[in-house]
Amino acid sequence: MDRPRCSVFIATSTDGYIARKNGAIDWLDRVQGPDYGYAAFFASVDTLVMGRATYDTMLGFGDWPYAGKRVIVLTHRPTTPRRDETFASATPLELLAQLRDARRIYVDGGAVIRQFLAANVIDDLTLSIVPIVLGDGLRLFAGGEGEHALALDSTQAWPTGLVQLRYRLPADRS
Amino acid sequence: MDRPRCSVFIATSTDGYIARKNGAIDWLDRVQGPDYGYAAFFASVDTLVMGRATYDTMLGFGDWPYAGKRVIVLTHRPTTPRRDETFASATPLELLAQLRDARRIYVDGGAVIRQFLAANVIDDLTLSIVPIVLGDGLRLFAGGEGEHALALDSTQAWPTGLVQLRYRLPADRS
Repeated sequence: MDRPRCSVFIATSTDGYIARKNGAIDWLDRVQGPDYGYAAFFASVDTLVMGRATYDTMLGFGDWPYAGKRVIVLTHRPTTPRRDETFASATPLELLAQLRDARRIYVDGGAVIRQFLAANVIDDLTLSIVPIVLGDGLRLFAGGEGEHALALDSTQAWPTGLVQLRYRLPADRS
Repeated sequence: MDRPRCSVFIATSTDGYIARKNGAIDWLDRVQGPDYGYAAFFASVDTLVMGRATYDTMLGFGDWPYAGKRVIVLTHRPTTPRRDETFASATPLELLAQLRDARRIYVDGGAVIRQFLAANVIDDLTLSIVPIVLGDGLRLFAGGEGEHALALDSTQAWPTGLVQLRYRLPADRS
């Protein structure tokens, strides 16, 4: 594979939402406690690629949680960087061609994840399913990702009711 | 609980679809083999409530798979019954008032499941997640189901990569 590994690590409601319509993620509170393997996953990536909505949400939290990582924000509206993050407007393939020295990329944010899936460059996907039906919100899989066979690596059920599904996407698929 | 228990047992793609846009379920072939507990579940219900699309799909298969069960098809376009199924046009609460002698109802079909969820009368939900992203199709959770906290009962991962999530919906919720 002549490009960095691209990974997704994300939580959704049981009906597939990553946030309420207004962006709220208060419903994640019901599974607070364990880190669900996030710290280990985060330690394994050297680069983050995220969408503008994810970036703006993260800035709203105050802290800069990405110290020591290269951060690329995909946006058509670049702004002043807080640290050393860069702003880019590129397709997944263009971006990956510029990131050949990266080893593992954390692809984050609904729109960016969908773009990378549609470009056939997601290699693994960890879905954390929160035990709640929201009935409305912003979807992870909003449609248009294309068809992708998944290979189940492992599952883990936590006492909070969160279930984690770890999938690989076959490397030879296109 | 002064009404029959209402249960859902359904398979979706990892991105939440129950069929392709044209109704096709060919993608279920990739997990064929085990019955995933369906026979045991089916034996536990005495009554089925399904939507017209589910009924028409089932008729297309030729066989009548519901012998010995009471079958109610929710539709505004009643047709000639093949066996002793009945056609009804009623809200979930109206229907349940007519089915007080039922013990456990198998609620099937996307639209009917959503109506029963929105009416707060689903008691348990078994989701079988097939390891494929379809990118498009007919959703199980199309929106409008309302918010429902779930309690995770158990999970099971099968060698085919299918993961089954069994949830209860709290009885005292409304």
